[in-house]
Amino acid sequence: MTSRDPRAGVRALFNPGSIALVGASDKSGWSVSTFGNLRVHGFAGPVHLVNPRGGLVHGHAAYPSLAELPGPVDLAYVMVPTRAVLPVLRDGAGAGIRNYVVLTAGFGEAGEDGARLEAEVVAFAREAGLTVLGPNGNGYINAAAGITPYGLPIPPPLLRGPVGVVLQSGALASSVLAFAQARNIGLSLLTSMGNESLVTVPDVIDYLVDDPATKVIALFLESVRDPDAFARAARRALEAGKPVVALKIGRSRLASRTARAHTGALVGDDGVVGAAFRRLGVLRVRSLEDLMVTAGLLASAGPLPGPRIGVVTPSGGASEIIADRAEDEGLELPAYAPETAAALAEILPPFATVQNPLDVTGYVLIDRTLLGRALEIVSADPGIDAVMLLTDLPRFTPPDPSVPMANFETHARRIAASPRPVVVVGNTLTDVSEFGRTVQEKTGFPHVVGGIEHGMQAIGAAVRWSAARRRALERPERPVAGEHIAVDGASGVWAEHRAAALLAGAGLPVVPSELVGGEDAAVAAADRFGYPVVLKAAADGLAHKSDIGGVRLGLAGPDAVRTAYREVMAALAGHAGAGALVQPQRSGGVELLAGIVRDPAWGLTLAVGLGGVWVEVLRDSALRLLPVDARDVREALGELRGAALLNGARGAKPADLDAVADVVSRVAAVAASLGDRLEALEINPLRVDGAEVEVLDALITWN
Amino acid sequence: MTSRDPRAGVRALFNPGSIALVGASDKSGWSVSTFGNLRVHGFAGPVHLVNPRGGLVHGHAAYPSLAELPGPVDLAYVMVPTRAVLPVLRDGAGAGIRNYVVLTAGFGEAGEDGARLEAEVVAFAREAGLTVLGPNGNGYINAAAGITPYGLPIPPPLLRGPVGVVLQSGALASSVLAFAQARNIGLSLLTSMGNESLVTVPDVIDYLVDDPATKVIALFLESVRDPDAFARAARRALEAGKPVVALKIGRSRLASRTARAHTGALVGDDGVVGAAFRRLGVLRVRSLEDLMVTAGLLASAGPLPGPRIGVVTPSGGASEIIADRAEDEGLELPAYAPETAAALAEILPPFATVQNPLDVTGYVLIDRTLLGRALEIVSADPGIDAVMLLTDLPRFTPPDPSVPMANFETHARRIAASPRPVVVVGNTLTDVSEFGRTVQEKTGFPHVVGGIEHGMQAIGAAVRWSAARRRALERPERPVAGEHIAVDGASGVWAEHRAAALLAGAGLPVVPSELVGGEDAAVAAADRFGYPVVLKAAADGLAHKSDIGGVRLGLAGPDAVRTAYREVMAALAGHAGAGALVQPQRSGGVELLAGIVRDPAWGLTLAVGLGGVWVEVLRDSALRLLPVDARDVREALGELRGAALLNGARGAKPADLDAVADVVSRVAAVAASLGDRLEALEINPLRVDGAEVEVLDALITWN
Repeated sequence: MTSRDPRAGVRALFNPGSIALVGASDKSGWSVSTFGNLRVHGFAGPVHLVNPRGGLVHGHAAYPSLAELPGPVDLAYVMVPTRAVLPVLRDGAGAGIRNYVVLTAGFGEAGEDGARLEAEVVAFAREAGLTVLGPNGNGYINAAAGITPYGLPIPPPLLRGPVGVVLQSGALASSVLAFAQARNIGLSLLTSMGNESLVTVPDVIDYLVDDPATKVIALFLESVRDPDAFARAARRALEAGKPVVALKIGRSRLASRTARAHTGALVGDDGVVGAAFRRLGVLRVRSLEDLMVTAGLLASAGPLPGPRIGVVTPSGGASEIIADRAEDEGLELPAYAPETAAALAEILPPFATVQNPLDVTGYVLIDRTLLGRALEIVSADPGIDAVMLLTDLPRFTPPDPSVPMANFETHARRIAASPRPVVVVGNTLTDVSEFGRTVQEKTGFPHVVGGIEHGMQAIGAAVRWSAARRRALERPERPVAGEHIAVDGASGVWAEHRAAALLAGAGLPVVPSELVGGEDAAVAAADRFGYPVVLKAAADGLAHKSDIGGVRLGLAGPDAVRTAYREVMAALAGHAGAGALVQPQRSGGVELLAGIVRDPAWGLTLAVGLGGVWVEVLRDSALRLLPVDARDVREALGELRGAALLNGARGAKPADLDAVADVVSRVAAVAASLGDRLEALEINPLRVDGAEVEVLDALITWN
Repeated sequence: MTSRDPRAGVRALFNPGSIALVGASDKSGWSVSTFGNLRVHGFAGPVHLVNPRGGLVHGHAAYPSLAELPGPVDLAYVMVPTRAVLPVLRDGAGAGIRNYVVLTAGFGEAGEDGARLEAEVVAFAREAGLTVLGPNGNGYINAAAGITPYGLPIPPPLLRGPVGVVLQSGALASSVLAFAQARNIGLSLLTSMGNESLVTVPDVIDYLVDDPATKVIALFLESVRDPDAFARAARRALEAGKPVVALKIGRSRLASRTARAHTGALVGDDGVVGAAFRRLGVLRVRSLEDLMVTAGLLASAGPLPGPRIGVVTPSGGASEIIADRAEDEGLELPAYAPETAAALAEILPPFATVQNPLDVTGYVLIDRTLLGRALEIVSADPGIDAVMLLTDLPRFTPPDPSVPMANFETHARRIAASPRPVVVVGNTLTDVSEFGRTVQEKTGFPHVVGGIEHGMQAIGAAVRWSAARRRALERPERPVAGEHIAVDGASGVWAEHRAAALLAGAGLPVVPSELVGGEDAAVAAADRFGYPVVLKAAADGLAHKSDIGGVRLGLAGPDAVRTAYREVMAALAGHAGAGALVQPQRSGGVELLAGIVRDPAWGLTLAVGLGGVWVEVLRDSALRLLPVDARDVREALGELRGAALLNGARGAKPADLDAVADVVSRVAAVAASLGDRLEALEINPLRVDGAEVEVLDALITWN
């Protein structure tokens, strides 16, 4: 059998017209669930049951093997014992079956023997051109098409809608399904990836990007196994205008790799994932609730064009919670325009205050049109980008359902007519009741986002996505290849003078220095620079000079230089090729750190921070994947908690951030040109004094 | 009528045997709801209807006024027009009715006229010894006793339980009620406070502390109107072992008061509220969900004794989310003891990994006893303080309900038998379904906390509460009054030399200095101290010397001193009594800030932080209400993001934190002894070098 187009394979995998359940048995919960799901949720094609003993299964005659089916099927759902999986695939391939879900566990996740078996399965599948989801996954739910080969119960109703969900977890798939149902969030596809030995997360993202039923993609990720493929798929989603929301776990795990260059320790794998997601416009969330609430908002109200939100509520208390949360999320609640305020004042009761967030007051209980009329006025305000309307769907069926129906229908019309996106948010995160769902279906009332707490996060995310997309689409997908700089002796840790020479050679501003081999030479150099000077240990392989007392600052005269030289040499005893570096002492300005480190997964990553001990102790740094331009660097500097220091706090000269960004982006370009052996290039400190930017110390580590 | 014991009054308010609804009308939604609530939710006593026109209301004969009732009632629920409220109270008082809920709005919240009316109502109620809840509040729900004079619909079932809820919001009361019902959290009392003109939040807290039905108190606060009363009530709750959880809004509002002393600007009202809550053991949360989820956990599993949590789950993905969230919340997930690990290895499938969090794997679908057996083993582990069991209640009624019933009953028995508290947490925040509630009722399965995200926050809070309680109960409730130090000329801003002299006089270590009035005197002083020296502007009323260039550091010789003196004097031109202060220049060590500022609501508050520009730019400070002892200060220092700097980062000498804490707590004691006119006493910097602690600059501001 020949190989096939992978995208066509995944499309066929998720859209079979006929299915065989292999290992079907009345005793297996998985078999019962999968068969039941296919029957209950609308799969219209034939479902064949395969059991080596034949006989009746789930009340139907079973075939002994795939080879004995009356004809080929589009998908085999495999739940046989581990060792039987490969024979089943061989049988199936022989019978012309090309798509498989393998639920069976006991492969790579179970140890070496399993990993060997898995490798055999993969090799055979590749050779035979099979598309396999799993092993060790529950299968998928193609809700859009009503195709549900999924090994756990799917309680009705299965809600169809625009959210595609991809999970690197089996157990959480059912939790996410239950949560989506509780919140009335419709799904296009939900898939549990299992071991991803053939079909991968990026493959499914690609499918969802092409899938017309999908508007938003939600991911639960334990790891990003192939960053390049992930980046390509995420970029396609961004270009297609389909937001990707991701819960990526492992925030708490500190990077285990070498902390030789400070940057490496600083960055940590998780920080780099964050930087990568930002670059790709992937919205990172921290909980399953935020994952689905954010996806639900994006699927209904769509991405929001900007951060200025006009809020309309019937509650003062809720308004104040919203104001607190808006600040957390970087949202703005601008005062309403004079014409808006005047129009609101006309309809509100005299004791109401016209402000944003607007509390139309409990008077809504007397005048049920009040909230809707306020919404209409606010949505016309020229100074806002979107409207947030606080209202809950009814939880219980009232004696006369026509009252809420009429009320929500009026609201729905006003929302549909709004010139700006309207996000409807409930007070707290509770289920949408059956009656609530009926109200939505009958009146066209939009999705209600689950509660202020998660809703404000989702609004913030929807705003950030729009900005990230604009920015990302301006940037070329692949970095423009820089000129490669060939370097001699690129191994180990380079002492400062070698690193500094390389940077100076590339045209970067580096403090002048002289490498000296004796006391007299040190003094002569100091005399040339003028006092005070700095004297530093210089030896390849020495990463942290100050840890061994190898940095002497503020040497005011020849005697101090001599003493410092002797002490530094004593501290360096045993280091081959040891010497000392003499530099003029600089003062004033602010010290920054700019480091580029190679992340094993995502490649070269820039970290900027306030230099010296502060970046290490306060961990106040901002990361960007390379390539970076000056604008990226400026933006990163703006994220530092200590950013105000750069703007000239308490009388200090403001740093010329354009000059800083220019130098740092050029340093990053140098790092990118040094080839694959570069592990880290760190500048610490980079002194900034107004428009003066100067490298005071540099370290290069090669792998 | 004579005054009554306020606690007895509140008790009577919430426990009437008979009720009159004043302003009852078929046309009023409030009247319909209140009457319906009383009828549906089990109020057994008589309900009289009062309407000036008499006639039939809600199908019953109405009385024209309270005076015409057949006899006195225990509570009048008043929903008449604003101007009619006072006459109703007069009528009622005349008829011997002592307790009122006033739903009517239009009082203080509506402007000056309303405020005048409210003052009249208050004056009359005080004089007549009436207990009044409101005005402008929806009333209350005494779920424990089935007494529900509440003006909005209460959908059944009304769940009784141990959580007392007090809200400074009307609209949110119904949201909280709906959320509690959705999560199967039973309430003792829920009250909407309205304008708090007579019965206040502390009054209701006091009632709940005494109420045997209440185990946990949940508050929604817009403001703490009487901090002393609030503190007394919170302290009573702490002593009674009843946790108080509070959502206090206004996090985002920056303090509007003078920023003359940096401390004042730093602290902000909201930070002080946080410090006050910490002192009082009040658990602050940031969302309505966290408010009720935390209260629900505390009401069921109780406060947790320590931070070491043993986690048992059936899901690897969930385990990793839990690990991330545990780190956020300061919880520890220690490795299981060898005997625990061995026992787990025996029952788990071979492909499972024995670790904490424990994932017993999807094998639970085959062996339904696995999770329970793992729980039993983990709960016996000697190295943990509490167990977290991840499991959801069933959402849907299965064809054979006896299967989950038996399963949950076994779990319930194991949980009841656990030697350590077991917190059961679901995967996501969804409603407890009717079947889920039935399972809990029939099997005794405990409360299931709503989802990992909010559940981990609640577990963290339950651990913090235990620690806060231990600490608070060790501390005397009222500060021991220190000796008052009388101060002459206590007004305006005191120049450094006066503030420093005061501190030195109190025995604190202050850098030596000399106040000089001319160049020669400055040089003479510098000669005595030895070079380098510092020269600073000295003038009362001058708060930020460095802003006018009034601080000259590192003056190396007489010429530099002369120049500095002249320049500083020029900068001070126009300041009365201007002079200069000469001090030896210190170097080395770390600079801290320690400031005590008078918060208008909570009184003297200590802020500690890393000194200089960093505390202002990074806002890295920790707050404590006075009085503080050395242990409080040490704890506060440990909260600083830059705490590692004090421990001796990168070769610096570690600061002797006991010495720092001793000095700072003595500074706080001095501040406390300076009387009510002290607005702020700020030490910036406080230099710390090993065990050397020295005040380098001080500022006192009087009001």
